[in-house]
Amino acid sequence: MSFPPLQNTLLLDVLNGKETERPPVWMMRQAGRYLPEYMEIKRKYSFFERVKTPELACEITIQPIDIVGTDAAILFSDILVLIECLDVEVQLKPGFGPYLPDPIRSAEQVNKLNIKPAEEQLSYVYDALTLTRKTLGGRVPLIGFAGAPWTLFCYLVEGQGSKTFSTAKSFLFSEPEAAHKLLQVMTEQTIRYFHSQVKAGAQVLQLFESWAAALGPDDFKQHALPYLQQIAAEDYGVPLIIFCKDAEWSYPLFADTNVSGFGISWGCTPEDARNFAGGKTVQGNYDPSKLLSTPERIREETKAMIRRFGHSNYIANLGHGILPNVPVENAKAFVDTIKNFTP
Amino acid sequence: MSFPPLQNTLLLDVLNGKETERPPVWMMRQAGRYLPEYMEIKRKYSFFERVKTPELACEITIQPIDIVGTDAAILFSDILVLIECLDVEVQLKPGFGPYLPDPIRSAEQVNKLNIKPAEEQLSYVYDALTLTRKTLGGRVPLIGFAGAPWTLFCYLVEGQGSKTFSTAKSFLFSEPEAAHKLLQVMTEQTIRYFHSQVKAGAQVLQLFESWAAALGPDDFKQHALPYLQQIAAEDYGVPLIIFCKDAEWSYPLFADTNVSGFGISWGCTPEDARNFAGGKTVQGNYDPSKLLSTPERIREETKAMIRRFGHSNYIANLGHGILPNVPVENAKAFVDTIKNFTP
Repeated sequence: MSFPPLQNTLLLDVLNGKETERPPVWMMRQAGRYLPEYMEIKRKYSFFERVKTPELACEITIQPIDIVGTDAAILFSDILVLIECLDVEVQLKPGFGPYLPDPIRSAEQVNKLNIKPAEEQLSYVYDALTLTRKTLGGRVPLIGFAGAPWTLFCYLVEGQGSKTFSTAKSFLFSEPEAAHKLLQVMTEQTIRYFHSQVKAGAQVLQLFESWAAALGPDDFKQHALPYLQQIAAEDYGVPLIIFCKDAEWSYPLFADTNVSGFGISWGCTPEDARNFAGGKTVQGNYDPSKLLSTPERIREETKAMIRRFGHSNYIANLGHGILPNVPVENAKAFVDTIKNFTP
Repeated sequence: MSFPPLQNTLLLDVLNGKETERPPVWMMRQAGRYLPEYMEIKRKYSFFERVKTPELACEITIQPIDIVGTDAAILFSDILVLIECLDVEVQLKPGFGPYLPDPIRSAEQVNKLNIKPAEEQLSYVYDALTLTRKTLGGRVPLIGFAGAPWTLFCYLVEGQGSKTFSTAKSFLFSEPEAAHKLLQVMTEQTIRYFHSQVKAGAQVLQLFESWAAALGPDDFKQHALPYLQQIAAEDYGVPLIIFCKDAEWSYPLFADTNVSGFGISWGCTPEDARNFAGGKTVQGNYDPSKLLSTPERIREETKAMIRRFGHSNYIANLGHGILPNVPVENAKAFVDTIKNFTP
């Protein structure tokens, strides 16, 4: 496929180890509920209509580029769409979150899974990526993403969000063989999904492990990390960022993989982040709730953050997704401070 | 007040630095919903009836001593009762959790707080402690507890539980002066509360900082730690355990206080725990969701846990509260493995 040439190369340059005059900036969940323009679309279409209609996903993905001016676009989608490859239904209950009417709770269910390869199943994602890449016209690069196997496993077994994911953990600890079979299936589908995303136009990939903290360090190493490492060992032809919230200590264990950058939450100090990442690029980690204070304070703190991380090998971002009640001018204050940075 | 002499001195011995033949064991939330005997009381009385009726609180507190055989009793109560000292109403909505109809969201509200000293306000807690201590007849020691100021602040401002406590954090970051005034008020009331608990019969105190992870390490050090240190600097005449979930790295910063032991969640490895605690006693850290597997597996893992922590200066416990759906025989398998431990 042929796409317009990329104009803003900051993100790709940093991930490819090149010096840039300033760090690139984008925000996790930047295409979303803090934007009045998004809320207008949300009022008209259900969540899965927005995700599964390439024209809507494209429009939503580009909104923060036009309105806030970030240096990258990330496709409007959801980590849970990959679950479709297992023929398991996911609903989104308003005010409740994701809900799976038939969660996976037995070895028998794992053995009877009806697997549909990601490259065939998720054409609406690929169509949205291609359309968005074309519509962006090379203004900024386009990021594709997926949820990590352990995080998807949490939803597949728990059937909904949870503070403890104790049902998912109980299944893992009492049916380890079936659990690992399921984790391996998700791993293979994630690799297929990433390859297909790149073919469709994704210029950077990010893997989200949101629920690392549900497991202690030893269980994380044993039950989640091997799958992350498998996915990261693959060469997708574009840079891969791993965001392993609350297990940033695991980054040295990705040394022999194709990871180009590490996402860092606000639970990890810039100094620790640099240590864990070795010489590789780090991305993060402004506390999203600090975007609820004043533009003045945000500007000051953002400058301090860049100073602590150092402006090389660094992608400015939040430590987690932007909150729905953040004023747009505050998000702009964050982004503009980075764009106006001079070393 | 005079109480019967203590027979099982394991917990106090360990906290006082004495060698014991085995580690003592108790479980956070051991008086609670996994016990059918508790559920019977729960069906008849509301949460606050159970908490505020000394006879009921006493009965519930002693249930796990009789049924599971732990080496300590911890008063059946709730960290949120201390909020009464601020004349702020707390409700418990079934299936929802704590709910404050009028949360604190402005400097004006902080300035107009009607403070009622903890020693006068919470007589039902003190009566329950005295009655329980007498009824226990010296079988095991009685633990009193309180929530840490930052954790209580989270509920006071947010008005309910939350995954991010972004409203509480937003108030902290945008109204730091009022926020710190409120944190200081909670600190002083906690100190009064602890002194009164000891006077009423508590033989050990535990301070719970459950929401440390909502703040990053720098914000935790700046906004939460100073209050924990103030509380820990006080001499209550009994051992104090600090349980600072997800901020175990802060334990070296309690070196100059009267802390006797440090609680550790399953997010902290035994090796890190020993490091952070220096020579002091550590308490933890079995993953509560592992109590949902089989008694055989629980016995194996519990032995492995003791080996990793070492059996001296160690209190066996869970890394967080026991889950409601744990079979009683599994809780017993955990407790019995420790009671049968021989070095």
